[in-house]
Amino acid sequence: MEKRIGRRTLRLSHPPAIISHACIGGRHEGKGPLAADFDELSQDSFFGEKTWEKAESTMQKRVLGRALEKAGMNEEDLDFIFAGDLLNQCIGSAFSLRDFAVPFYGLYGACSTMGESLSLAALLLDGGFGTTIAAMTSSHFCTAERQYRMPVPYGSQRSPTAQWTATAAGCSILSSRGEGPRITHVTCGKVVDKGIKDANNMGAAMAPAAYDTLSAFFRDTDTGPEDYDLVATGDLGKLGHEILRDLFARDGVTLGGNCTDCGLLLFDLERQDMHCGASGCGCSAAVFNGHLLRRMEEGSLRRLLFAPTGALLSPTSSFQGESIPGICHAVCVEVLS
Amino acid sequence: MEKRIGRRTLRLSHPPAIISHACIGGRHEGKGPLAADFDELSQDSFFGEKTWEKAESTMQKRVLGRALEKAGMNEEDLDFIFAGDLLNQCIGSAFSLRDFAVPFYGLYGACSTMGESLSLAALLLDGGFGTTIAAMTSSHFCTAERQYRMPVPYGSQRSPTAQWTATAAGCSILSSRGEGPRITHVTCGKVVDKGIKDANNMGAAMAPAAYDTLSAFFRDTDTGPEDYDLVATGDLGKLGHEILRDLFARDGVTLGGNCTDCGLLLFDLERQDMHCGASGCGCSAAVFNGHLLRRMEEGSLRRLLFAPTGALLSPTSSFQGESIPGICHAVCVEVLS
Repeated sequence: MEKRIGRRTLRLSHPPAIISHACIGGRHEGKGPLAADFDELSQDSFFGEKTWEKAESTMQKRVLGRALEKAGMNEEDLDFIFAGDLLNQCIGSAFSLRDFAVPFYGLYGACSTMGESLSLAALLLDGGFGTTIAAMTSSHFCTAERQYRMPVPYGSQRSPTAQWTATAAGCSILSSRGEGPRITHVTCGKVVDKGIKDANNMGAAMAPAAYDTLSAFFRDTDTGPEDYDLVATGDLGKLGHEILRDLFARDGVTLGGNCTDCGLLLFDLERQDMHCGASGCGCSAAVFNGHLLRRMEEGSLRRLLFAPTGALLSPTSSFQGESIPGICHAVCVEVLS
Repeated sequence: MEKRIGRRTLRLSHPPAIISHACIGGRHEGKGPLAADFDELSQDSFFGEKTWEKAESTMQKRVLGRALEKAGMNEEDLDFIFAGDLLNQCIGSAFSLRDFAVPFYGLYGACSTMGESLSLAALLLDGGFGTTIAAMTSSHFCTAERQYRMPVPYGSQRSPTAQWTATAAGCSILSSRGEGPRITHVTCGKVVDKGIKDANNMGAAMAPAAYDTLSAFFRDTDTGPEDYDLVATGDLGKLGHEILRDLFARDGVTLGGNCTDCGLLLFDLERQDMHCGASGCGCSAAVFNGHLLRRMEEGSLRRLLFAPTGALLSPTSSFQGESIPGICHAVCVEVLS
């Protein structure tokens, strides 16, 4: 069977199953509408550590530990881990994985990392290079604010288009054996930059990348948004999601009520005063590894197009006057039976 | 054929060929012993740009362009690009790839990125997910100094164990069709941390990771260092290379004269006053995509074990008192005919 369909989409010959998954979150995530879908919620933003960066590593350690535990596995059962995060030099993943003796391919896909890690894990399993692979990422509000904007204690005012970085981590364990929702298709993103320069409006910067990847996926698979129970982009938030709807509308494609964004799901935007919604690698990772996979297991969701988006900027690139490139990695997850 | 041999090594069923490669470097690289192996050397550390960070993106753009040109290809011929760099949020790769409409999986493996990108490109080709994939990385002395240590204009004194970040970029184009040296085996690294905390002594921090990956490779393939024309680690430099020799000596394994390190090859350590040697993603990338692949094409090198190493620290992790985790990704490259 030809694996490549159309120009950019890969159809897996032996779709791997997501045999286990876990997500953990912080205080705000615990007050949001998806609280019940978390495996662990911490009131302590330090997760018992002395710094927020160490806390983020600890989140990754714990979420990997929980996903393994739920699978009845230990680290020796993993052939690879694909992981990454937003911290400079991805120290969230590197320091968490010191405690796990597992072969590790480090990724940087900004907030698209859950999609990128699931994609590569699925491809390596489909290629017969292993039987069990973990895909993981995290973000932390306080590490992201300090690194990208201002340290939290400064109490900076947030602009109306700002999003709130999730303090959350998510991990999926994929296997070529075992049962669970399966990754059937993978579409790799391209770097798309439409010239948005406002680092407080990431949704607008990433929407064109989501449009590019989703359009390619629909074209390659000869399907439309209506063919999925749910189409969930990464963390475009309210404004980015509206822009995505507009971009598709220009092509005569209507994104219906089955199309949403993880950044719209994690928090109650009004009640929690979250402006344009949630963001960060941990946003789509937690929504996917909590809410969405639970719905798939319960049977209320059978065909999901999951498309996390990332903004590939750095504070340095913004200081140097650069615009914000975006990327979006999509996977189709299906309950086959 | 079983792809996994031993615990950690993958033997490719259809070893992809490196059909094209290119490397570019800066002023110091042009004064070193490998100058003649570069495709392009620039006297201008800004590569025509206004900032060093933009210069690094430009290096990646140019090296990818040159590798494509040498292959007689253009961007439409590439199924994927695997790339990454040392800059915060990997902006070297992200901004260079704005100008190429190619599906992109971003990596963070610090100075092991050439090994990581070659590994994943080879696995995806072997798995039948594409026919042509580029693997690329870069580093720049001035961006790395500014980010990890002190801005260059401060004129900080360097410690004797310090290494000099290469201003260089390298790119390989791999294909499941076509001719060239082939990637026959891949061994993925683990995060190894032996507690070294001196950020000016990266070689010592990374040597245990190189030992871990190379030991696994030799054990899995039932070979020893003497079975290769050359074993070249990433950028351990002088001290790290000695530590690696010591670690193997404890096992009764002698690393002979065919075992070297890219950090020892790029510069003339004495004449160029480079302390412990070269480092940076661009070091192993340039040595591999220039000197080593040229020797393979000429026939003076037929069986190469290439094992770039990375130090997974950040300035933040060091400020917070953390030690330096290392990783090493190995590929075996062979002239088969």
